[in-house]
Amino acid sequence: MGFDTISFLSDYGRVDEFVGVVHSVIRQISPATAVIDITHEVPAHDIRSGGLTLARSVQYLTPGVVLAVVDPAVGTARRAIAVEVGDGESILVGPDNGLLAPAVAMVGGATRAVELTATEYHLGAAGPTFAGRDIFAPVAAHLCNGVALEDLGPEVDPYALTPATIPITREHEGELLAEVLWTDRFGNLQLNVDPAEIEHLGQRVDLRFGTRARTGIRRTTYAEVEVGEIGLIVDSYGLVSIAVNRGSAAEELGLDTGDEVRLVLDPAQVSQGTATPVELGLKPRA
Amino acid sequence: MGFDTISFLSDYGRVDEFVGVVHSVIRQISPATAVIDITHEVPAHDIRSGGLTLARSVQYLTPGVVLAVVDPAVGTARRAIAVEVGDGESILVGPDNGLLAPAVAMVGGATRAVELTATEYHLGAAGPTFAGRDIFAPVAAHLCNGVALEDLGPEVDPYALTPATIPITREHEGELLAEVLWTDRFGNLQLNVDPAEIEHLGQRVDLRFGTRARTGIRRTTYAEVEVGEIGLIVDSYGLVSIAVNRGSAAEELGLDTGDEVRLVLDPAQVSQGTATPVELGLKPRA
Amino acid sequence: MGFDTISFLSDYGRVDEFVGVVHSVIRQISPATAVIDITHEVPAHDIRSGGLTLARSVQYLTPGVVLAVVDPAVGTARRAIAVEVGDGESILVGPDNGLLAPAVAMVGGATRAVELTATEYHLGAAGPTFAGRDIFAPVAAHLCNGVALEDLGPEVDPYALTPATIPITREHEGELLAEVLWTDRFGNLQLNVDPAEIEHLGQRVDLRFGTRARTGIRRTTYAEVEVGEIGLIVDSYGLVSIAVNRGSAAEELGLDTGDEVRLVLDPAQVSQGTATPVELGLKPRA
Repeated sequence: MGFDTISFLSDYGRVDEFVGVVHSVIRQISPATAVIDITHEVPAHDIRSGGLTLARSVQYLTPGVVLAVVDPAVGTARRAIAVEVGDGESILVGPDNGLLAPAVAMVGGATRAVELTATEYHLGAAGPTFAGRDIFAPVAAHLCNGVALEDLGPEVDPYALTPATIPITREHEGELLAEVLWTDRFGNLQLNVDPAEIEHLGQRVDLRFGTRARTGIRRTTYAEVEVGEIGLIVDSYGLVSIAVNRGSAAEELGLDTGDEVRLVLDPAQVSQGTATPVELGLKPRA
Repeated sequence: MGFDTISFLSDYGRVDEFVGVVHSVIRQISPATAVIDITHEVPAHDIRSGGLTLARSVQYLTPGVVLAVVDPAVGTARRAIAVEVGDGESILVGPDNGLLAPAVAMVGGATRAVELTATEYHLGAAGPTFAGRDIFAPVAAHLCNGVALEDLGPEVDPYALTPATIPITREHEGELLAEVLWTDRFGNLQLNVDPAEIEHLGQRVDLRFGTRARTGIRRTTYAEVEVGEIGLIVDSYGLVSIAVNRGSAAEELGLDTGDEVRLVLDPAQVSQGTATPVELGLKPRA
Repeated sequence: MGFDTISFLSDYGRVDEFVGVVHSVIRQISPATAVIDITHEVPAHDIRSGGLTLARSVQYLTPGVVLAVVDPAVGTARRAIAVEVGDGESILVGPDNGLLAPAVAMVGGATRAVELTATEYHLGAAGPTFAGRDIFAPVAAHLCNGVALEDLGPEVDPYALTPATIPITREHEGELLAEVLWTDRFGNLQLNVDPAEIEHLGQRVDLRFGTRARTGIRRTTYAEVEVGEIGLIVDSYGLVSIAVNRGSAAEELGLDTGDEVRLVLDPAQVSQGTATPVELGLKPRA
């Protein structure tokens, strides 16, 4: 059986040779496999940012193996895992630190998972510090070659894997407390807000960040946002984003990933964020 | 028929997952197609810079499909187009905003063009804001699979497509008024000057920028430029570039893309730039 | 015969189209060849940094052709070369300026070398300034197609090629004088120190840089380094690296590539670095 594509995400950057070495390791084990780089510019050691990037990407990825490495605890007792989703349609390989959890949840939860202890599918390593090269990439390549999931190590309960903490919105004193999930290349600010949550509001939505207040105007496309206006767009992932006309909303508003944004539902006031665990167990696909 | 290669240029950057998602979309529609990344670091929304980068690259690209996305008006009435060049040797796919025009002109003009309205070759999208993923990439992949240009939408007159404005030199009071087209990674400043325009001048050419004056010395290679000297090189694209010895001419001279440089033809003086439209209609190949 | 993989390293960056154009040139000459990008972010014109990056990577690269371009003297009398290693297992292609030397030495030395003078395997060029596109990439692609090394130009004595100068440690007045070879993405500082050189010291090693002193604690993984501690790790290349807990040792210590670090062997003092040439001739493989 096997797979013909590995989608690869990491915090390795492209300045050092890490990404190239991982590609080389894969090519030597599984020469016919295509490797697609999702991004390698996840901020160093930022598990949450990597997990959200993977979750945004996952529904567009080619079925096959997903290799994801943001691994500040490399070499310690944190487990190395492979997580099967979609009854075997794809397998995600990476550290068990919450990185994979949002993507796994997004595609309906895990059907099986194993811990990667079978060292015959790893490289002999110079040290315990480059698991991407020495463990995760070889395992991903062997999966493409048709090695069975159960041969990679003992099964683990998907519900026992490390969950991710994704912030969800909540209402408080007449406001919807939201958070900037992602600031993209163009300075657009993706919120953790589903359009349905603000559907009953009109075209104008009062926004508050810290002690400041602005009015957001709901628009369909970035280009429809008028000069000087704060636009609210349903972005390409189906979430509400803040945008300005051919500029950076992040710069203009002084906001960045992780900052709180409050959307006024009723004339009322302030509070703090909250987080809910996302678990890896099987759930009905959204 | 079809094609086996897509050459891909954008202003998406490599930090977000946009480029990886586009690769994934292509692979799912046309698994055997190779995707070559030209660059994704076109400055955000900078159509002119993207167009010049594509024009510099185009004569070296593998015949096939060129996918180019710098698209500040995404989702609005600006057309999505595919432009055939070389009687079908290659097809350029992107927004109709002037981005494709310099490259199309460089290879002899368009032989046909269509507007991409046939939605059966697009992805169903979450929103109208990521046309690279939802329209341009799927169309590029379907072209590789052999879908005919005329099936993608109605033909449009190549002469009715949005032209690019490329600055051309002109003489004014004894000076050749030129412009920095491109500042490369090494700080070399490519001018919009053909070597023939300054052939009659000697090895020393008087340069003026703003109120400053320097003497440029014509050299064959970057390494022949002596320390402390301002060199004039015919660069790898056949245009005149300003270079310094193992350093950045851009930094040393305080010049950047878009700045004016005046080359003294006769002892005389100053003026301003000019722009000429480049049209997409068929012209004799240079 | 030939090869099916080109591993490609340069100082071209990914902002300009240089890397994409090189990929396109290769694809047109040798369509079935896979190109793996090691990195293109070698600092501009930094031959030593490029050479060390290649040396770190080389043992993990797919056998085949290595295309390496950091070439400040492009277009001058510096030779363009191809160097065979491992009795033909791989061939390194690039300028004869010391860039290839550390990698060649790492895999046991050259078995043959030629100067790339056979212009029928080059592109006709617009100028003598982009040898990556016009000479090195076409030659690499033709090698993949099975063109014999000896057809690319006259043989040259591997011992007559430009060597690299790699700093080696030396003892001086009770200290081991070492140097930072590489500062990686995570701020870890790789030293030119083999673990065997400090094996006889205990878990605590006194470090000195300039007039400052710190104590390094030997640890097995990055994550075991405690907060506030300076860790000494055997990194994934088998060399001693300085690391701090989930932060940048480079920032914390104010050190960067090329800086001197002194490890106290006996209570004693200071001195300066030294360099030893690495030659390209055949040596027993390590």
